Amino acid sequence: MKKKILVLATGGTISSGFSPNNSLEPQMSIDSIMANLTDVGDNYEITTRDILMMDSSNIQPEEWQFIAREVFNRRKGFDGVVITHGTDTMAYTASMLTYMLKNIPVPVVLTGSQLPITHPLTDAYGNLRLALAMAASGLPGVFVAFHNKIILGCRAVKTRTMNFHAFESVNMPYIGSVDSSGLILNRELVPAPEGEPELLDRLSDDVFLIKLTPGLNPRIFDMLYDLEYQGIIIEAFGAGGLHCIHRDLVGQISSMVKKGVSVVACSQCLYERSDFSVYETGRLALDKGLIQAFDMTTEAAVTKLMWALGQSDDPAEIRRIFNTNIAGEISL
Amino acid sequence: MKKKILVLATGGTISSGFSPNNSLEPQMSIDSIMANLTDVGDNYEITTRDILMMDSSNIQPEEWQFIAREVFNRRKGFDGVVITHGTDTMAYTASMLTYMLKNIPVPVVLTGSQLPITHPLTDAYGNLRLALAMAASGLPGVFVAFHNKIILGCRAVKTRTMNFHAFESVNMPYIGSVDSSGLILNRELVPAPEGEPELLDRLSDDVFLIKLTPGLNPRIFDMLYDLEYQGIIIEAFGAGGLHCIHRDLVGQISSMVKKGVSVVACSQCLYERSDFSVYETGRLALDKGLIQAFDMTTEAAVTKLMWALGQSDDPAEIRRIFNTNIAGEISL
Repeated sequence: MKKKILVLATGGTISSGFSPNNSLEPQMSIDSIMANLTDVGDNYEITTRDILMMDSSNIQPEEWQFIAREVFNRRKGFDGVVITHGTDTMAYTASMLTYMLKNIPVPVVLTGSQLPITHPLTDAYGNLRLALAMAASGLPGVFVAFHNKIILGCRAVKTRTMNFHAFESVNMPYIGSVDSSGLILNRELVPAPEGEPELLDRLSDDVFLIKLTPGLNPRIFDMLYDLEYQGIIIEAFGAGGLHCIHRDLVGQISSMVKKGVSVVACSQCLYERSDFSVYETGRLALDKGLIQAFDMTTEAAVTKLMWALGQSDDPAEIRRIFNTNIAGEISL
Repeated sequence: MKKKILVLATGGTISSGFSPNNSLEPQMSIDSIMANLTDVGDNYEITTRDILMMDSSNIQPEEWQFIAREVFNRRKGFDGVVITHGTDTMAYTASMLTYMLKNIPVPVVLTGSQLPITHPLTDAYGNLRLALAMAASGLPGVFVAFHNKIILGCRAVKTRTMNFHAFESVNMPYIGSVDSSGLILNRELVPAPEGEPELLDRLSDDVFLIKLTPGLNPRIFDMLYDLEYQGIIIEAFGAGGLHCIHRDLVGQISSMVKKGVSVVACSQCLYERSDFSVYETGRLALDKGLIQAFDMTTEAAVTKLMWALGQSDDPAEIRRIFNTNIAGEISL
């Protein structure tokens, strides 16, 4: 029996054409897009729905909530869901959906393309076919399907602006890849759902990401506090570096934590784990209440802090939520 | 005749031992470090000097100026300079020295290690030997020597927190690598000095880096303006994505530029070029005066804006300086 796949379209380059002033803008319906794949109906029973028509640079918390609700409420009766999406913020959306769609019992697969489906050299065909195959795989979770690879959604990072190989799986092997034997999945890498599916779509957008630069003035923290930010993520140097001479960041972190702000640290290095206990300054900051993101991607950490702040008002509980693995996004 | 090499030490993991509470801290003199390489005196005439003893997370604008002056003033009579430095901010320092030491006529080579030189598995020996060989190569410019690779300084990015292969050469091939034939250099990749060496060590630290996250509130710009920041770098999405619905960043960029703030955009993707003219929102922002960083690394862009603000007070001149290639950091 054919697998039933729901395809939800949100826009992105895959659906784009040229606007009157020659820049790309999303404009094609999902039915127009799917009409290019004349054979997929032989393999899947596909239902389509246009839910947004946006450049993914404009996908924001409001859209994450909307997409999560659409998936959660419409998924019944389907074996899997495909979401077409722009590549620019796909990694953020994939991470946020991982948390909002906790214990989702079917595959939810984001895909898109680097060239519009109407371009003669487009990568859209391969990516869409891969996403459909993954949606039919029976492996539950949120994934990114791109350039013959399947990435756990909360481990995806867009690392190349132009190349079709646009996404990397960071600090986790690829979940799957395609070769002449078809789609090969490493199913054991994907955490199994541990309960009933839940729609947990509350979040706070009062989160600010600071990518640390040498000489960063600590007064930024006071400024963020005055603006009532509830969460701050610091992309620190290397495995856990923060400056403390000339301009003391550790004292400011301590002050923010005392005032009830949740402060998380990750690394600005793309790959591998951060651990702030290795160097003196990092250790001091941990003593003051800094939360560690360990091997999480920045995309997964930012969205998780926004989401954790939506689940609780209590800093201790927010810390507990942040440091609880939901679906493979963190190795403690 | 032996090449004369000046080795300036600034601290970093290479010089670290364990502090009383078991975290790493810089503590070894450069002579103690070099004493481990018993044979290098057969090949080079080495002069050493301890100029700083710091975790590189604490290297900031003051230290960049100090290091640049030390190199510039002490280099005469030497064929090349090696700088030992922590890995955490080495890419920032390498970029800043590229600008501050314009037209430097000898190799200036930064190196360090992921494990202290006293560790039985240290990578310090190989890195130091490579840096010395590069300093003796006669190829002028600022470089990073690490894990058998030579990277143009303004193209280096630390991408791995733990691995000995800690640095990537971003948007430029490696300048050199080591194999059984020794150090092989692609000399044609390195721009030749185009004039007399100059020490251009003025800079502004009133630069703020915004790594864009979905939903970023544009009020941050007003806040930065109130705090008298003169330069803002935006790490945008993909090849040139910024949000403009719900929260309008383009209007704010326009407002900042009108007030005389220099606003630069680069990509948060590690690899490949950004170009804000491809998508509608980016094109709008360019019309409003956004400066493009094209294929620069974030490290090179942040330091270049700080440096450009030190060279001029005139926004048009700052834009011209930023978009002039100094030593291979930007392809226009």
